[in-house]
This record gives sequence, C-alpha cells and structure tokens, in this order.
Amino acid sequence: MVRPIHGGNLDWAAEIAGCAPDDILDFSASINPLGIPPSAIALIRDNIDTLQHYPDPSYHKLRKALADHHGVTPEQIVVGNGAAELLTWGAYEGSKLTDFYLPSPCFADYRRAVKTFEIPTKFYPLDALEKGFKEDTSPSGLIINNPHNPTGKLWDKPTLQRHLNKFALVIIDEAFMDFITPEYAPSLIDLVTDYPNLIVVRSLTKFYAIPGLRLGYAITNPQRCQTWQQWRDPWSVNNFASLVGETVIKDQEFQQKTYQWLTPARIALENALKQNPLFAPLPSAVNFLLVKTKIPSSQLQQKLLKQSQILIRDCLSFPELGDDFFRIAIRTPQENQRLIDALNMAYDP
Amino acid sequence: MVRPIHGGNLDWAAEIAGCAPDDILDFSASINPLGIPPSAIALIRDNIDTLQHYPDPSYHKLRKALADHHGVTPEQIVVGNGAAELLTWGAYEGSKLTDFYLPSPCFADYRRAVKTFEIPTKFYPLDALEKGFKEDTSPSGLIINNPHNPTGKLWDKPTLQRHLNKFALVIIDEAFMDFITPEYAPSLIDLVTDYPNLIVVRSLTKFYAIPGLRLGYAITNPQRCQTWQQWRDPWSVNNFASLVGETVIKDQEFQQKTYQWLTPARIALENALKQNPLFAPLPSAVNFLLVKTKIPSSQLQQKLLKQSQILIRDCLSFPELGDDFFRIAIRTPQENQRLIDALNMAYDP
Repeated sequence: MVRPIHGGNLDWAAEIAGCAPDDILDFSASINPLGIPPSAIALIRDNIDTLQHYPDPSYHKLRKALADHHGVTPEQIVVGNGAAELLTWGAYEGSKLTDFYLPSPCFADYRRAVKTFEIPTKFYPLDALEKGFKEDTSPSGLIINNPHNPTGKLWDKPTLQRHLNKFALVIIDEAFMDFITPEYAPSLIDLVTDYPNLIVVRSLTKFYAIPGLRLGYAITNPQRCQTWQQWRDPWSVNNFASLVGETVIKDQEFQQKTYQWLTPARIALENALKQNPLFAPLPSAVNFLLVKTKIPSSQLQQKLLKQSQILIRDCLSFPELGDDFFRIAIRTPQENQRLIDALNMAYDP
Repeated sequence: MVRPIHGGNLDWAAEIAGCAPDDILDFSASINPLGIPPSAIALIRDNIDTLQHYPDPSYHKLRKALADHHGVTPEQIVVGNGAAELLTWGAYEGSKLTDFYLPSPCFADYRRAVKTFEIPTKFYPLDALEKGFKEDTSPSGLIINNPHNPTGKLWDKPTLQRHLNKFALVIIDEAFMDFITPEYAPSLIDLVTDYPNLIVVRSLTKFYAIPGLRLGYAITNPQRCQTWQQWRDPWSVNNFASLVGETVIKDQEFQQKTYQWLTPARIALENALKQNPLFAPLPSAVNFLLVKTKIPSSQLQQKLLKQSQILIRDCLSFPELGDDFFRIAIRTPQENQRLIDALNMAYDP
C-alpha cells in the first residue's frame, strides 16, 4: 500500500503492524477519544429505515439546528459531506482569482482542492498572519486553519480579521475550533454578516468522533450558500449524518465532558514528553501536539507500529517538517501513558 | 416550501398532505419497495463503532467487490457519494469540450452538473440516438441514461455503442440498469476497456433502497479514475455506504426476489392504468412508468396527496412533459392497488 498523506489510515497501519485495523491505537487522526456520543449511537440504531428515503435537499432541520447553535440564520449555512467537500467548493469559488495564499506548513487537502481547479498558489510562513503581507493581495484568496493543523497554533480574532479587508476571498477552516471552550474560542463566525468575502468552514467529525460518517458545514453569506447548493449535487449529506448533526450539536453533556478531559490531558502529555530529551512538543491550543523529534519520525512510526501497535502521524506530507516532526492526538490519560511508555521504549541506543 | 425538482421529497409532500413524512406512500422516487436488504441492516447495526475511523481513502475492499461483480478491475472503478457526485466530476472532465449533448426530456441533475462548470448544452430528441447526429460531434460530450429516466425507455448496446466513435466523451448513466435481469441488461460496462472516452455511472441506492445512505460508482479507464480521486476530497463515501456496498452486491437472494417481483408487478400496474381512459402508460423496461394523463398532473398530485397521502412525481421539471405526464414507481402489488384505487377516485367529473 502507498504511504497515506492523511492520518487515520488504519488499513495501511495494520499491514505494517501485522494486526487487525481495530487493534491499532490511533494517535494519527485527531479525533475525540471519548468516542461517538451515546445520543448519536441510539439515533442511528433507531433510524435505519430512514435510509429508504432521499435526504431533504434543503437540509432544513440540520441547518436550523446549526444556525441556532451559532447564532446565525439557516440561510447563512451550507452543509457538506465533510468539511473536505466544502473546501472543494471554496476553491472553485476562487477559481477566477489570481491565486490562493496557503499556509506553510499546509493541510494537504487545501493543496488538493486548489489544484483541482488549476489555481496558482503562494505559500506564506505562519508569522505573515501577524506581520501582514507587503504586496497587494486584493485579487487573491487566503486559506488558513484556526486552530492551525499540524502546529496547534491559535490566532486571536483581530489578527485574522485584518486580512478580511486585504484579500478578495478568505476561507477560515475552524475544523478544530470546537475543542476550545466556547468563551475562549476566537471564531470568526460572527463576522460573516459583515464580510461577504468570508467563508468559515466547520467540521463535526473530529469533536463528535464521526469521521466515518462525514459531516461539515460552511457559514458564509446567503447568496454564496445558494450558489454552492446549486453547483453541487442535491443530496450530499447522508441521512444519518444529518440526523446526528441535528442532535449532537445540542448535546451539552458530551461537550462538557470533552472540555473537562482535554486541558488536563494535554498538559500531562506535554509534560511527559518534555521529560525525554529526544522530544520537544510545540505549544498547542487544541487536541493534538506537533512534536520535534531527534529520531526521524518515519523510523519512529514504523517502530511504534511494530512494537506497540501504536500509530503516530509522520509529517512527510508537510515538506517543511519532514522527518523532524510527528503529530499526535491527545487521547485518554491511560492511552497517552501507553504512548509515552512506547516512545520511551522505542529509543534503544 | 419550494416545489422540488426531484422525486422523494417527503417533507414537502407531508406539508401538503397534512401528515407525517413517514405516512406518505411514495411513488415519486423509484426505489425498490422490497426495502433495505436485511444483510445491510444487520451490518449497520453491528458497525456503528467504525464511524470513529476515517474511511480508507482508496476504498479498496468496496472497489474490489464491485469489480468482481462486474468482471472489471478495481483500477477501473471510482466510487462516489451517490451517482450524483460522479456526474459532477463527469461534467468537470468535459469542461474543456465545446458542449454537452443532453437528452430531451433530461434528468435534472445532468443540467445541474453541466451548468456548474458553465459548459454549453444542446438538447437532442431521444430518437436521435437511433437516427444518429448529422453534424460533427467529435468535439462534444454526450450524456444519456439507459434505461432512460423518466420515460423508462431502454436502448440496445449497438445503438449506444456507435456514438462512442462520434463523441469525445460519453457518459452512460446506468442508475436503473440493475432492475433488468442481468442476462438481458444491455450494459456498456464491457466496452470500458476498449473505449477510453466511455464513463459508465452506476448507483446502488435505487435497487438496494438506500438513497439516504448515498453510494454510486463510475466504471471507466484507470487513468480517469485516478484523476477523479485526486480532484475530489479523499473520503467522499461514508463508512456505512462502503460496508453496505461491499455486501449487498453479493446478496443474490435479494437480487432474485427483486427480479421476481418486478416484471409481474409492472405488467399488472400497466394493465390496470390502461383500464382508465384518462391515463396512458408508456412502455417501460424498468421499475417506473411514465404516464400520459388527461388530468393535469400537478392537480392530480395535490389531490392524491390530500385524499390518499400518496405522492406521485409531477413532470413540471421536464419542460417537454409538463402537466401532461406523471411518473410513478412500481411498488408492491398491494401498494400499486392503493394507487390505482386513489387514481380512479381522484377523477370526479
């Protein structure tokens, strides 16, 4: 099998580890380790029959639930088959721009989406967001994820807001924003009404542990939502994703449990990593850590798979990072300890 | 709510009928009335946990099962989030052609896909497929569904094959081909190896009654499959769709039951309709009937909804057909009888 450019490819990992995909402890995909909310599991079990019907092409109930959650209107929301589908349409929206500015390091799917429509790209260093761009960027598009993947960096609102006046189109991918307690989350959603050139992309698959179900949405101006809805096929979100999305967005118990788990688990994992002079985790605002490593990460990945059936994310698909870094999800305290033990064991001088 | 341009919109229908969406007897979407195969239901119930993992972006097992079923190689298959997603990429593939030839009457989603990429269109009458096109069509693309929706017409293989040498790109949508017993089904799949300009699109949602789950695939040359896979996002098919597709394609018991139900049910429904001088069904090879009506179909649709909670497909989204035709799915003998009774009652001079 070909080395994957995204995390979470368990079939590939299982082949190397010599075990079943289910036996892999996956630190490569940054998914909530609390698992699928029980409210979602019950819903799926009780609604299998609804698969006999087409989805409502307007996804009215789902959009209403999401709009209520974010304090916007349903007309400002377009739902998608995962955030990745919406990146496709975001790129297509920008296909008449002179170019797209992409961050370096860059989530591989931005490159994919922009390349599909043969749009020229410029890569910018992350600190350009604070320092500003010297050239005229008014005919260009900007894509950034906040929090940033893979570094875990988080920008405050004013830092990103200033670019809304400088670029023709700005796509802010907030796929991991849900992991930040709402009162501290610097989401740009409330700027959508004032900035018609702003597209905020969100995902429900990471926080609610349903990447296999596929569900994302974009919050942007109503005219753009309608256009995208007419561009793409009428039924892009499956019935289960639609039902689950409507429900989990209101699941405050699950949300609270996630906030309570994350911060102490991240601090403990960071501190444990720092004990080993081979590893240096970068500061992170979210549910994953980028770690600088003195052992080449592709070697380390193979070793951990074979010795401990643990999968970490190498960074070979980020050319700027290469073999000097790996990325790990924050998991439960017990699972994090298994990773720490395995990492400490993996280095055998 | 806005009048839908596709069948199967139960929320819209329920509002008119004044009942719950579940209480509508839906003849508007041409879905197998035998329902979801029991093999698929069990699979979903037992695999909810797998939603925590990303799909395998290569969809290797699913493509292998589909390839084995059709006698092609997995490299000749690209899977999609319903056939409709693949129509999007088929249109994009043709975006550098001078135009696309679309059938008249035309399934609305072909117009949607072609319009997305601003490709000029020409509409051709169905008999042009037999008579041939006089002009030079070599810089153009051709789209046709076989069997044709909404007429139910079926073309034999030589009739369609001759156009493969005349058009730059040919998309044959065989979404309803599974309803024809395999030994009589004039699929063009076995021409894919010889004609690199041929794309056959298939759907599993109609035959296996899973339109809410979304699953389609295209069979075409391996180079094109790779290109599409790179164009679109990596995880377009959800885990349940992937698992179900792998399994139902081998469910011979369900397939046999469907063949045994369809032909007698269609003949009985056709004959019953012909008893009423207001209605004239067109000959059909598949699981739906296009019916010429002396009562305007939009009136009839409202009446059936309000009186009997039965939804038929008006043909207003097909300008050539308008109020003179409606389309109905073939359902079980008992359900078909309910429709006949309601139709006979609806006409109250």
